Amino acid sequence: MAFEYLTTMPIEKAKESFLETMRREGFSAGSETVPVAEACGRKTARAVYAHISAPHYLASAMDGIALKSSLSFGATETTPVLLDPKDYTIVDTGDPVPDGCDAVIMVEDVIFQPDRSVKLYAPAVPWQHVRQIGEDICAGEMILPSFMDITPAAVGAMLAAGVLSVDVLTRPVVGIIPTGDEIVAPADSLKDGDIPEFNSSIFSAMLREWGAEPRTYPIVPDKPEDIRSALEKALSECDIVLLNAGSSAGREDYSAKAIEEAGIILCHGIAIRPGKPAILAHRKDKAILGVPGYPVSGILVLSKLLKPLLEIWNHTAGEIPERCRAVLTRSVVSGLKYQEYVRVRLGKVGGKTVASPLGRGAGVVSSFMKADGILTIPQGKEGYEAGEEIEVELLREARALEHTLVVIGSHDPLLDECADLLHKASPSLFMSSTHVGSMGGIMAVRRGEAHAAGIHLLNEADGSYNTSFIRKYFPKGGVSLVECVGRTQGLMLPSGNPLHIHSLEDLSREGLRYVNRQKGSGTRILIDYLCREKGLDPARIYGYDREEFTHTAVAAQIAAGTADAGMGIYSAARLYGLDFLPVCMEQYDLLIPDSAFDSPMVRLLLEILKSESFRKRMETLGGYHLEHPGTVRERF
Amino acid sequence: MAFEYLTTMPIEKAKESFLETMRREGFSAGSETVPVAEACGRKTARAVYAHISAPHYLASAMDGIALKSSLSFGATETTPVLLDPKDYTIVDTGDPVPDGCDAVIMVEDVIFQPDRSVKLYAPAVPWQHVRQIGEDICAGEMILPSFMDITPAAVGAMLAAGVLSVDVLTRPVVGIIPTGDEIVAPADSLKDGDIPEFNSSIFSAMLREWGAEPRTYPIVPDKPEDIRSALEKALSECDIVLLNAGSSAGREDYSAKAIEEAGIILCHGIAIRPGKPAILAHRKDKAILGVPGYPVSGILVLSKLLKPLLEIWNHTAGEIPERCRAVLTRSVVSGLKYQEYVRVRLGKVGGKTVASPLGRGAGVVSSFMKADGILTIPQGKEGYEAGEEIEVELLREARALEHTLVVIGSHDPLLDECADLLHKASPSLFMSSTHVGSMGGIMAVRRGEAHAAGIHLLNEADGSYNTSFIRKYFPKGGVSLVECVGRTQGLMLPSGNPLHIHSLEDLSREGLRYVNRQKGSGTRILIDYLCREKGLDPARIYGYDREEFTHTAVAAQIAAGTADAGMGIYSAARLYGLDFLPVCMEQYDLLIPDSAFDSPMVRLLLEILKSESFRKRMETLGGYHLEHPGTVRERF
Repeated sequence: MAFEYLTTMPIEKAKESFLETMRREGFSAGSETVPVAEACGRKTARAVYAHISAPHYLASAMDGIALKSSLSFGATETTPVLLDPKDYTIVDTGDPVPDGCDAVIMVEDVIFQPDRSVKLYAPAVPWQHVRQIGEDICAGEMILPSFMDITPAAVGAMLAAGVLSVDVLTRPVVGIIPTGDEIVAPADSLKDGDIPEFNSSIFSAMLREWGAEPRTYPIVPDKPEDIRSALEKALSECDIVLLNAGSSAGREDYSAKAIEEAGIILCHGIAIRPGKPAILAHRKDKAILGVPGYPVSGILVLSKLLKPLLEIWNHTAGEIPERCRAVLTRSVVSGLKYQEYVRVRLGKVGGKTVASPLGRGAGVVSSFMKADGILTIPQGKEGYEAGEEIEVELLREARALEHTLVVIGSHDPLLDECADLLHKASPSLFMSSTHVGSMGGIMAVRRGEAHAAGIHLLNEADGSYNTSFIRKYFPKGGVSLVECVGRTQGLMLPSGNPLHIHSLEDLSREGLRYVNRQKGSGTRILIDYLCREKGLDPARIYGYDREEFTHTAVAAQIAAGTADAGMGIYSAARLYGLDFLPVCMEQYDLLIPDSAFDSPMVRLLLEILKSESFRKRMETLGGYHLEHPGTVRERF
Repeated sequence: MAFEYLTTMPIEKAKESFLETMRREGFSAGSETVPVAEACGRKTARAVYAHISAPHYLASAMDGIALKSSLSFGATETTPVLLDPKDYTIVDTGDPVPDGCDAVIMVEDVIFQPDRSVKLYAPAVPWQHVRQIGEDICAGEMILPSFMDITPAAVGAMLAAGVLSVDVLTRPVVGIIPTGDEIVAPADSLKDGDIPEFNSSIFSAMLREWGAEPRTYPIVPDKPEDIRSALEKALSECDIVLLNAGSSAGREDYSAKAIEEAGIILCHGIAIRPGKPAILAHRKDKAILGVPGYPVSGILVLSKLLKPLLEIWNHTAGEIPERCRAVLTRSVVSGLKYQEYVRVRLGKVGGKTVASPLGRGAGVVSSFMKADGILTIPQGKEGYEAGEEIEVELLREARALEHTLVVIGSHDPLLDECADLLHKASPSLFMSSTHVGSMGGIMAVRRGEAHAAGIHLLNEADGSYNTSFIRKYFPKGGVSLVECVGRTQGLMLPSGNPLHIHSLEDLSREGLRYVNRQKGSGTRILIDYLCREKGLDPARIYGYDREEFTHTAVAAQIAAGTADAGMGIYSAARLYGLDFLPVCMEQYDLLIPDSAFDSPMVRLLLEILKSESFRKRMETLGGYHLEHPGTVRERF
């Protein structure tokens, strides 16, 4: 028996074998009786029948008088009928209609006489304004079939029908066992190599959303006997057990061994990425999943394999995820061996839906938070080209995309602050920003894939910013350049500047580790230009080809001591308490296509740039110079 | 000041004035700090920034060895490089990359030598297989803007970023005060006039779904001072108070007076139906709603007026409800004075979406449970014609409609049992049945609005069932008649037959109260025929024009003592423990249009009719004769 996954199974085959086995083993919800008032959100275990009728008596549907209708026959405008007080009863809406009465006359149509008799100018039709017994629900009628969701209205219907308690499906108890010597409880500060255990919190939240009851066990170190006994305990207490982490083929892999001893492994290694090292197993009617340690892998394994299992438990059908067609903004390449799931951000720009791939690392949990959709690249396919139309599984409502401002281009923390101010100002609007550098932003606008792009591009010939690039890439115009901020670029250095760096020339010093920005970013263009101007050979700067995608990522490397210098903006240095050697002031502007300029989202964005709140936030970040943010610098 | 609503306000005006006032009064969520692991489903009170980077150290992205890449430069297939054990470190995925190392080589590409040195046949590219600090999240970056939903992935992102607690918006506390002398706690059996108090359970379930915290107060009798003090107590403890029932203009109306004493009434009486007697009021920043006592009115007032108020509290935008176009199966008439909300059942039949109006009484809570959508008839419009295309607000996912078997026609409890068996057999399928009588069913199939119709129509000429009607209404064919059941029709009588009814002729006896079925129903056609045959004059039968829509509704009237006899099927009589005088055996069949015949839903329905489970359930109901249910009797 191989514990290492030498081969991997296609996901559809793995899923089918797992679900079929569990179905055969009788994996299924039991039932329990709960008070109806607490049953909302549960599922009926069997059909529910009405105990009493609603209404359970003849009830007045109006405020007025109840009477025997035949007593009013013959009444007209000219020959009114006079009713003796003993021949009618005053009723309010909902009151019982007394025995012998078969109609209600509205209070507006009744003329009371001083002696309490009443005058009627029109006859009552038998059963008028009387709610018949069972008008709503008849005793004995089926109110709800089996395996149905109990909604607030269903709660009302059951109570109205005298059903005070209801048999509902039990919730599956899902045990989560975190394993690994390196796993520690989440904390504000961590040692190198410590991996905070947050998977159980993510998984618990997902499980609760799916109607399961999560139970998290203490972290188990990488000792076979500890894992084994934790697994035994969980199997005795739960319907499903997730053994988390330790299911890759690494040095500390004891999961597969423990699972094999506890039950029967159906599949170890699935041809999906992320998620490959998953294990599917069972002991009789209890399911066991070996869940990869990386959160994104774990989330995918739960979504693709555990969720269908819960549907078997609940006798529900798998929801068919909503899908949409979108144009891919960047190429994605995939290995042929796996079915790959790529998280994407979606936006609607000028009538077309665009999908920007997010970070694909299995460790990148933030990508799942930012994702609006998932692109599946089937096994055997090499990937998709930029500009290609693809199909995406939606994670958000399609309609929300209409209200998302898509910003693609150079990174600045001010974009996050704008996103916050935008959503605060208009709760229906969201902003999604993707960091691909200034040139990437220009290209995105040119391809009609962004509502706005942050750019700061230096024209080396005359020292001007942005305009010459726009003229070059938009020869026919159709865009506006909106003033945003001046910002200070410089060298970010460890606090206290221990290496005594005082000029760009110092970067080529022996032993100094530089960290750079990616090609196409305005900051990379700036440092390339500065090197040329000062006659510095980039090949002599160690780490010049180590590329990060944001100012903060560069600052984070320096703050952590894995690099000694990097070019970036003052606010990023300040955020990390770094020393800063100012080099120049540059102009960071927004490029906006005419097609988007008059949209309410863009108009609100410009309002925000002009606002006092924006100015205050920029002061807090530091290193910015504001003149007339939000005004059009030039129309092209 | 008028306590009675002499005029009513259009809903848009009432809503705007209410929301605007509350916004001005500062009605808004506070914030509270909760552990991130418990924050799922809440909303951020302010933007959340990362405390630490994730990963917070250089981490290996593979199982293998970490090294300084420059040591491997020059390695080729023919000139391998030999690494000394001190020059590399074995790392697993996620392990820290030691100081001085800048690359990881996968274990598959490493050849370990007996002396623990390793041989490399290719150079490592700097930073290969190394997860940079902040690859996922950089310290100081904004993770979530203000007023955003906290999802499971957001929980993960916050924990990964060292954020262990988060400021979330407080949930609004909504007090619910049930009032009314006639209101009692829900019970299995009730006295005439008792109205079980289930509104607070429905409202609580709705409020919880909307993220509010309901607090139900004890039932308050109709005493002004009791209502006043209950309202004072709730106002001191809650953000919103719902004073339920007692807000119609009837005899026991103390709500408006109590609310006027406690705060300021903005509106009393809104031009909507149901929901008219609603009161909108406030005391400073606390909202007070007088909610009509009828559950459907209450549900509508909460949906249309309280939900938007919660969105102000949460700084969220109102969801735009999904809508669809549908063809109306029956005309609906509305008063010009109100904006009326009509609950409809929806189904997709042969490519078109059809909407069948449900019971419109404000007391009919079951209609809300059955409703798939809501049709709004604007103020000033008289209604819509059958066959007209209308726009409907969806209460279920549009895609679920594709899987709904639409049965319109004669009522039999076997349809409910089929609905249960269908959904149990295939959890993605649902069945929706509407009772409009046999003729109504034939018309629905003819107009292409139903997948199937239950019919039992007697040809008086030859005593045959159904076929002659189909030939008449489908001269060109295109339908199949599927055998269902034989069922016993007869007179349902109070238990013990106190009036000694032994033949149909007894129905015209003085003092006897008959209850009939509606015109167009097969049972009505049967009794009409029997009367003619026996020379009985229907005008001489008291209650012959009192119409109910189902067998159970007729049985319910007799069981409750409001009628002494009614025609119906044996199973309905048995359900209510009634005496039964058999009159004839009739054939109840299903009429199915060819367009639906081969659909998976219809095929499954026929399977179910043939099944042992169906036969068993029919035995339990009683009075049925089964020969070959589910087989085609004739194709037309």
